[in-house]
Amino acid sequence: MRISWFRIIFASPFTNNYMSKLLIVGTVAFDAIETPFGKTDKILGGAATYIGLSAAHFNNVDSAIVSVVGDDFPQEYLDLLSSKNIDISGIEIVKGGKTFFWSGLYHNDLNSRDTLDTQLNVLADFNPVVPQNFKDAEVIMLGNLHPNIQISVLDQLTAQPKLVVLDTMNFWMDCALEELKQVLKRIDVLTVNDEEARQLSGEYSLVKAAEIIHTMGPEYVVIKKGEHGALLFNDNQVFFAPALPLKEVFDPTGAGDTFAGGFSGYMAQQGNVSFNNMKNAIIHGSNLASFCVEKFGTQRMEQLEKEEVNTRLQQFKMLTQFDIELTQ
Amino acid sequence: MRISWFRIIFASPFTNNYMSKLLIVGTVAFDAIETPFGKTDKILGGAATYIGLSAAHFNNVDSAIVSVVGDDFPQEYLDLLSSKNIDISGIEIVKGGKTFFWSGLYHNDLNSRDTLDTQLNVLADFNPVVPQNFKDAEVIMLGNLHPNIQISVLDQLTAQPKLVVLDTMNFWMDCALEELKQVLKRIDVLTVNDEEARQLSGEYSLVKAAEIIHTMGPEYVVIKKGEHGALLFNDNQVFFAPALPLKEVFDPTGAGDTFAGGFSGYMAQQGNVSFNNMKNAIIHGSNLASFCVEKFGTQRMEQLEKEEVNTRLQQFKMLTQFDIELTQ
Repeated sequence: MRISWFRIIFASPFTNNYMSKLLIVGTVAFDAIETPFGKTDKILGGAATYIGLSAAHFNNVDSAIVSVVGDDFPQEYLDLLSSKNIDISGIEIVKGGKTFFWSGLYHNDLNSRDTLDTQLNVLADFNPVVPQNFKDAEVIMLGNLHPNIQISVLDQLTAQPKLVVLDTMNFWMDCALEELKQVLKRIDVLTVNDEEARQLSGEYSLVKAAEIIHTMGPEYVVIKKGEHGALLFNDNQVFFAPALPLKEVFDPTGAGDTFAGGFSGYMAQQGNVSFNNMKNAIIHGSNLASFCVEKFGTQRMEQLEKEEVNTRLQQFKMLTQFDIELTQ
Repeated sequence: MRISWFRIIFASPFTNNYMSKLLIVGTVAFDAIETPFGKTDKILGGAATYIGLSAAHFNNVDSAIVSVVGDDFPQEYLDLLSSKNIDISGIEIVKGGKTFFWSGLYHNDLNSRDTLDTQLNVLADFNPVVPQNFKDAEVIMLGNLHPNIQISVLDQLTAQPKLVVLDTMNFWMDCALEELKQVLKRIDVLTVNDEEARQLSGEYSLVKAAEIIHTMGPEYVVIKKGEHGALLFNDNQVFFAPALPLKEVFDPTGAGDTFAGGFSGYMAQQGNVSFNNMKNAIIHGSNLASFCVEKFGTQRMEQLEKEEVNTRLQQFKMLTQFDIELTQ
């Protein structure tokens, strides 16, 4: 990483101006989406794409994506990621290979969906290679992938990261539970949805589920409840961030990954791990996810401006902040 | 109402010590409940019972219940309500009549239930009579009942209340929608759950549902989402209170009414209607409801101490309050 003299001169403990590295691992893919509001052809998708576009909203963070695509993947999509200052040297392009493709149909309530098609393609033989200058990244965001790929990335690191965040899903609990348990021992934060937390722990109560998951490794457990918000558990502390109530939800694809990108991007920016920072990270993640669902695919996130982000953060404050006298 | 000299002497605008009247209308009944954790015989139940026990936690509020029971209703239950300083002169006791009875079975997730038995009994011919000294009550809490009964209570008032809160359910939307629409024109706050808000408005998005319901009369709409918290809508303002994440939920019966009791009790105590007060009222309602579900029926609410209530309010603060720099 080249640090310009400009940055060094203006870096100070007061302005929090040092650069931090965020390593993102996950799919870069094609999606075809159908919701009650319309349908798309093959468009840009993938967990790492959404994470990257979301994390790009935090100053002083150098991000890199580790992933794989086929040579059918348009250069303009790669250029888009580069234009957001995301290092794409870790995205392998397989000659003659086809990019991972997912197709899904959302039901009327947008809370459930059917997978219509999954074509692993180049993902089937993916061996992640971490770029040399990101082997000492401060924050590692392991997007939803086979646990063995997530482990392989951790094995390539040359320095102990400040924070390792892992996202996973029920699919890996069904078919790679032992491997998942291995990687859980090596991470700090697990993000899963409520049903996945219940499946992994065998407990219905999310409080109890988080307690069980703590014993599997992660010190912090984030349970995502979609339109019902997200919970952060750490020992006996709990924090909750609602989802912003929206008039229209257009396409929920990528909302969880956008949340993870906001969470890990903010933590990388802050540079130190505390429950207080993690509370704010949950809010930033929820805030960015609230934009993601407003248009199809990555469309909204590609155009999102800082001013809009700040305005909506203010709405989050108004939505949740109160002042009660306890002595009444 | 007799105001003691002690109270008059110590009343001042600084200590918010004036007495306010809260009129509660709703069922006082027998419930028989079965949850995955056990089952009860006929125990004390009814919307007005839960509302009253919850509102009893607010100082400087004189509450009265308007309801009807049969002479099979135990004196000890009436004594319990009196012991909480609830005026029960408006609870009619029908000689030879049988008290309203409801029996329900909760499923494993406690989010859904089957009604096993409903015996209207004396409720079938209930004509509510508002006690003379509560016809000028500041706050009216109309618990879930036939809309015509709710209208009859409003017709008996001799002074314009500061706030009229109405709770209802899908049953009345199915079989008494026109009457419900009539009473909606005369209230300030409607509390319904998410599915009921959707049914009443014909809109899936809760933001849009609240907009439609505003046009039906209520200036404030509270949408209860059970374990997922509650939303308060007023014009373009929205506030959200989560439910406290609990290790064990034992019996959800009465949680919505306990919420309504905390909400209306707090508003009566404060004496003036503002969005800010209503935000706090939502928090108090959620806080009290979090106790209600910890034991069968009214058991937990009968014993609940102020100290416990305040401790948990502090937990609500920690659960939701954050401090984000918007300029980052």
